[in-house]
Amino acid sequence: MSGHVAVLGAGSWGTAFAKILADAGRDVTILARRASVAEAIRTGRHNPEYLPDVRLPDRVTATGDAEEAITGAEVVVLSVPSQTLRGNLADWTPYLDPDATLVSLMKGIELGTTKRMSQVITETAGVPADRVVVVSGPNLAPEIAAEQPAATVVAGTDSRRTALVQASIRTPYLRPYTNDDVIGCELGGAVKNVIALSYGIATAMGFGDNTRAMLMTRGLAETARLGVALGADPITFAGLAGMGDLVASCSSPLARNRTFGEHLGRGETLEQAQAATRQTAEGVKSCLAIRDLARAHGVEMPITEQIERICHEGMDPRLAVDALMSRTAKPESYE
Amino acid sequence: MSGHVAVLGAGSWGTAFAKILADAGRDVTILARRASVAEAIRTGRHNPEYLPDVRLPDRVTATGDAEEAITGAEVVVLSVPSQTLRGNLADWTPYLDPDATLVSLMKGIELGTTKRMSQVITETAGVPADRVVVVSGPNLAPEIAAEQPAATVVAGTDSRRTALVQASIRTPYLRPYTNDDVIGCELGGAVKNVIALSYGIATAMGFGDNTRAMLMTRGLAETARLGVALGADPITFAGLAGMGDLVASCSSPLARNRTFGEHLGRGETLEQAQAATRQTAEGVKSCLAIRDLARAHGVEMPITEQIERICHEGMDPRLAVDALMSRTAKPESYE
Repeated sequence: MSGHVAVLGAGSWGTAFAKILADAGRDVTILARRASVAEAIRTGRHNPEYLPDVRLPDRVTATGDAEEAITGAEVVVLSVPSQTLRGNLADWTPYLDPDATLVSLMKGIELGTTKRMSQVITETAGVPADRVVVVSGPNLAPEIAAEQPAATVVAGTDSRRTALVQASIRTPYLRPYTNDDVIGCELGGAVKNVIALSYGIATAMGFGDNTRAMLMTRGLAETARLGVALGADPITFAGLAGMGDLVASCSSPLARNRTFGEHLGRGETLEQAQAATRQTAEGVKSCLAIRDLARAHGVEMPITEQIERICHEGMDPRLAVDALMSRTAKPESYE
Repeated sequence: MSGHVAVLGAGSWGTAFAKILADAGRDVTILARRASVAEAIRTGRHNPEYLPDVRLPDRVTATGDAEEAITGAEVVVLSVPSQTLRGNLADWTPYLDPDATLVSLMKGIELGTTKRMSQVITETAGVPADRVVVVSGPNLAPEIAAEQPAATVVAGTDSRRTALVQASIRTPYLRPYTNDDVIGCELGGAVKNVIALSYGIATAMGFGDNTRAMLMTRGLAETARLGVALGADPITFAGLAGMGDLVASCSSPLARNRTFGEHLGRGETLEQAQAATRQTAEGVKSCLAIRDLARAHGVEMPITEQIERICHEGMDPRLAVDALMSRTAKPESYE
């Protein structure tokens, strides 16, 4: 393999992903927004802001200069907040190698356009879709950084590029599976944030494992229905980027969307939950775009609809439970 | 609806299921093995052995006499231990109404024959397959009995009978979905016990949510591979009787297979785990039958194979982790 890998974004997952790449034998340059973070990584082998206890391998370096990070990179990994991707990538596009493989680590839907992250990438960078590879799965960054056994999905339509990314992240603690269903993998990652909100709400309302398993399973079924309408393979949602990511995000008491949902389930308003967690969970934003996407395609997404009402219309979660349970009982299917 | 519903077996799930049926408006007769339990249910409105705090509705009665319970029943619900079903049903068959619908609540594979429970029922009772309906899903009995919102699957090949059972268990707290994939629903319920063992083992070994989500997702993928070989629809495994039941069984700290797995993960032998839990978890037995079934159909089930080795060949769980993680990374698929 020739050329280094650029990781654009020094957040928790970008930092852990740089470690994976280095452990798999790649030379990695992290682009940190702030020069002081880049300096700390270069000289101290640690990211002082995210995963500060994790020692980064010697193959990892960092810079605050985008041109330096990107120029000559064979693989460019994008790991920035979903809603800032378009603006960031526009600045970075001039430095991209004409054959560089672009890897998306982001899970979200762009507000306003309802576009998936890979669509934002192809539009903004002006590259064909087969240059983009999506990595998604049950990959909580602190556990990966601690080298706990994990698996992930490398999705793309150019098998040479998916094989390149797969080989670039295969380590004794990470098993990457390939998949050609980019739409399914991206949608699974985006909608899981909304379902994790519902899981947190149900948890705070005192419901147990039956109720939560129902929300996860029927939430995944409505995700798959939307996926099929958009051209995804329904089986993808039963895989690591669908069920796997959903289960990990709901199970972890540290996961942001679940935690945010717990605040809402205790009867707090959106503003109170935002104040308590000092952030807005991704699912709170995404549920609007996903609902719009579902309506545009005539797909029923009852759980997403209720979450949107709880988050943005001040609906009482108890009424949402009644609404979901009183729906007509149907055949279990994805169509 | 005419005729009562007989529930054969007064365990935890049989008792909760009788309550559901009565709450849905059916008259129910529980057959309890011991006359004293039947007497207590009749006179005290409680099952003293299982869910003793749950008040049973007035429509529920009980008897220790099989002929009395079964004669005239429109629906006969079987809720006995998997490995005793054949013997029990042989005794009960003479009393079955010639058009009675037989409902299976059991999750297991018969040792020796590797048959699913519905197959044991059709063979033993001498009835066609379309007389049998399987109910399976994320349905931990104590939570259902507490009327927490839940969903389940009613699977059968005769839509009149699945509609009958669906209507007989539809309550404000339970949403029954129909499905015509009996094989998929039964297999999901049987193999989840084996995967829940692996979840418990991983938990006791200190692994977090990434590792456990990987085991659940890849465990479901190998279940689906076996299912496809046996004629099931792979999508069933992404539903309530597949993923839903698996998630609930793994998540609940009270679930038996998970708890048993935790003993094994702490390095206890099978005998020590049996002594500590005063039982043998269903997955410990089923993993043998499922492995045999997989081998007979040429299906790879790497997680099931490792669980069989840990349970029955004294293998160190740490070696099982290494074996699973060092497999060649493949495309993510069910075929």
